[in-house]
Amino acid sequence: MNNRRIQVIDTAVEMRGWVTNAIGRVGLVPTMGALHEGHLSLAQESVAACENTVATIFVNPTQFAPDEDLDQYPRTLDADLNQLDAIGVDVAFVPSVDTMYPNGEEVTIQPPPVARRWEGANRPDHFSGVCTIVEKLFRIIPADIAFFGQKDFQQTRVIMAMVRQLGMDIDLRVCPIVREPSGLAMSSRNQYLTDPDRELATSIHRVLREAQAAAQVRSSSPQAIAREAETKLKDAGISKIDYVAVVDPDSLEPLDTWHPQSVMVVAAYVGSTRLIDNMFLTS
Amino acid sequence: MNNRRIQVIDTAVEMRGWVTNAIGRVGLVPTMGALHEGHLSLAQESVAACENTVATIFVNPTQFAPDEDLDQYPRTLDADLNQLDAIGVDVAFVPSVDTMYPNGEEVTIQPPPVARRWEGANRPDHFSGVCTIVEKLFRIIPADIAFFGQKDFQQTRVIMAMVRQLGMDIDLRVCPIVREPSGLAMSSRNQYLTDPDRELATSIHRVLREAQAAAQVRSSSPQAIAREAETKLKDAGISKIDYVAVVDPDSLEPLDTWHPQSVMVVAAYVGSTRLIDNMFLTS
Repeated sequence: MNNRRIQVIDTAVEMRGWVTNAIGRVGLVPTMGALHEGHLSLAQESVAACENTVATIFVNPTQFAPDEDLDQYPRTLDADLNQLDAIGVDVAFVPSVDTMYPNGEEVTIQPPPVARRWEGANRPDHFSGVCTIVEKLFRIIPADIAFFGQKDFQQTRVIMAMVRQLGMDIDLRVCPIVREPSGLAMSSRNQYLTDPDRELATSIHRVLREAQAAAQVRSSSPQAIAREAETKLKDAGISKIDYVAVVDPDSLEPLDTWHPQSVMVVAAYVGSTRLIDNMFLTS
Repeated sequence: MNNRRIQVIDTAVEMRGWVTNAIGRVGLVPTMGALHEGHLSLAQESVAACENTVATIFVNPTQFAPDEDLDQYPRTLDADLNQLDAIGVDVAFVPSVDTMYPNGEEVTIQPPPVARRWEGANRPDHFSGVCTIVEKLFRIIPADIAFFGQKDFQQTRVIMAMVRQLGMDIDLRVCPIVREPSGLAMSSRNQYLTDPDRELATSIHRVLREAQAAAQVRSSSPQAIAREAETKLKDAGISKIDYVAVVDPDSLEPLDTWHPQSVMVVAAYVGSTRLIDNMFLTS
């Protein structure tokens, strides 16, 4: 028994019907569960901005590569529902894989060019999986506003491009990264980290802050600051780095000269855990 | 001046608003214009079945290969509007390429496996273009029923698979092929045919009918009947044949044994004009 008021829906028909009948704005917070304060900040934003909030919990298999952590990905449904309920989220949409992919993954969305570099280059089918599931969720839950975290910076730009290109009638809101006191960006994958890993992982945030300080006085070029950050990560003991780059906030192309909103994006392994982080350097 | 009552809309916002405010069912008839009796039969079906009918006229560039006939494709807007108006179609949605592809073709739909063979094999990006534009049209025009012609048989199956896979909330209706008295299937591309071409083109329908007669008595295997049909087309003077096959009506895979609804699909050139046709052999 529980006293949760949150409604749990697992079919597309019921979910779409609920949204169709909702009075007032509907906010959508798509998640893969294993909720942390980052997710909860999105839900809080939605509850504040919209009369109705739907959070989705679905570990989307199509955005994981075969060698990635789909099976180990943390699943904490009961705790997730309690947390969403406490915030005032109205509905948790918790579909099965069969509900979302009734005939396997046959029709997919080819993502826009902004998906090509960085995460797209290191995880080749990742953004196709992201676009495909988000397109489906937006169809099942025709919300007014969808909330995404800046933590997955490139993902926010990929989804913005998809929404614009396909003419989807939904507003997107990107919410700031929530960090632990150490500076480590909140992530469901932080659960994989050992204590020494967590200590090491804080150097990512430190290096981003130092890059930001250097960028704000334009002490050198974007590319020089990116190379310097990479060296610092390696010096700190982070040896497996997928990328460190200073990029245009819209195109995600590397910058040769400073943009008023230059972003540093990082992906690196701490132990066997792949972490991503980012920071606006110049805004 | 004209006395047409049909409303012509060219923006997505206005079009979506019109459908949202429509009372009763909305039927959608997507076309590339250059309307013939085949298209008009779809519009008539829609007017009979739905309180509101929207026909779209858009020559979709993304479903043409660079060496295909995009530039020459016939455009007869004024005549098209008169014909739709006479049937009682309420709205013609006639968007520009910029309206449908505001930033070029950046985000596309990867079509389902049923798109791989036949037209998909001979026109590699064709069905991606078809799926992408149909997905956009279904979003702009959230109709109750969309009407497609059996003439583009594989296209109907590709769109059915996309609708099922993406969970689109729309019914599809496939309407019979309309033929000229000679048996030639109506096609906007028939305008390209010279008189001798038209004569030659009638052999496609004749060969389909003969295959149907043979199939109905199961005189030989599906593959033998397909080979026989190919030989007959060549004997008639149609030398450039993309494919002749007897296929499963859902998967479009070639049949080794008879299915209760076996379909023969054909694509061949008459002169420089590529024609397609098909027929249920066993239903």
